[in-house]
Amino acid sequence: MRRAYLAISLDGKIADRSGGVGFLAPFEGMELGYDAFYATIDALVIGRATYDQVRGFGPWPYPGKRTWVLTSKPLEDPPPGVEALAGGIDGLRAALAAHEGGDVWLVGGAALIQAALACGLIDRLELVIVPVIVGAGVPLFGDAAGPELRRGEVRELPGGVVEIHYWIGPERA
Amino acid sequence: MRRAYLAISLDGKIADRSGGVGFLAPFEGMELGYDAFYATIDALVIGRATYDQVRGFGPWPYPGKRTWVLTSKPLEDPPPGVEALAGGIDGLRAALAAHEGGDVWLVGGAALIQAALACGLIDRLELVIVPVIVGAGVPLFGDAAGPELRRGEVRELPGGVVEIHYWIGPERA
Repeated sequence: MRRAYLAISLDGKIADRSGGVGFLAPFEGMELGYDAFYATIDALVIGRATYDQVRGFGPWPYPGKRTWVLTSKPLEDPPPGVEALAGGIDGLRAALAAHEGGDVWLVGGAALIQAALACGLIDRLELVIVPVIVGAGVPLFGDAAGPELRRGEVRELPGGVVEIHYWIGPERA
Repeated sequence: MRRAYLAISLDGKIADRSGGVGFLAPFEGMELGYDAFYATIDALVIGRATYDQVRGFGPWPYPGKRTWVLTSKPLEDPPPGVEALAGGIDGLRAALAAHEGGDVWLVGGAALIQAALACGLIDRLELVIVPVIVGAGVPLFGDAAGPELRRGEVRELPGGVVEIHYWIGPERA
């Protein structure tokens, strides 16, 4: 299963106008189920800008998992298990089709999620909605109308956070 | 209590790029609790553009309730109970302070809600989130960061709809 799991503000932002995620800081020590989620993931996909940002934060936060970085430029000294994936969304489609492991986490950023949504490469959206109105910032969703959604699980988490899952596309028999 | 009760898309839009709300049509026959909500409301506040749009839809949908229309221009032949309220957000603040009845519903549109949020005139946000990604359209929230929010009730409704309440501002003793 291809899963887009993201923290967003109530106004749908994944970052503030500077690209920062300081609005998530108050929730970082809370038990929001991230570890349980991460344990179910076999591989990750991450956009190049998000990868570079995460690399700048400190130690690689996704050790021990195969990770594809969508990029047309080589990665300098990537962490173990991390590889560049060229060819844009078509390259991603091919990699996902060839993937024989378990669940894949589409980490972000917004451009990756929007392209993957538009191309049918996401099975489930898993939104962790923090009770903050960020204002100007980077919206998860863009100007394109989305595919059909079916609500899955709804969880009330600590700190006023709500997690909602949406299955993408019409129900399968 | 001053309550902003609105239907929004998953991507936070209250209307599409033409100002239309066709994305809400699939949910209109569903039991989403609107009648129970409406029964708790004593008076309404509505922005002028939204008022004009609603008037164009057909019969006035809010009969029997006192309604303030925020506008600097007179209303032509308003329905019974509907009156113009001048002075913008300051006029609204004064009217709300003088109101001795029960709950007031801030209907919209986005400009009214954003101004009222910024000025501390909303006690509770009540968001009815439909499982649709509208794309380009009219976002409920603007570029301003919001006040502190505290999650209230979360309801899973038919059609994949989720209703979430947020109290505005720090908890009162």
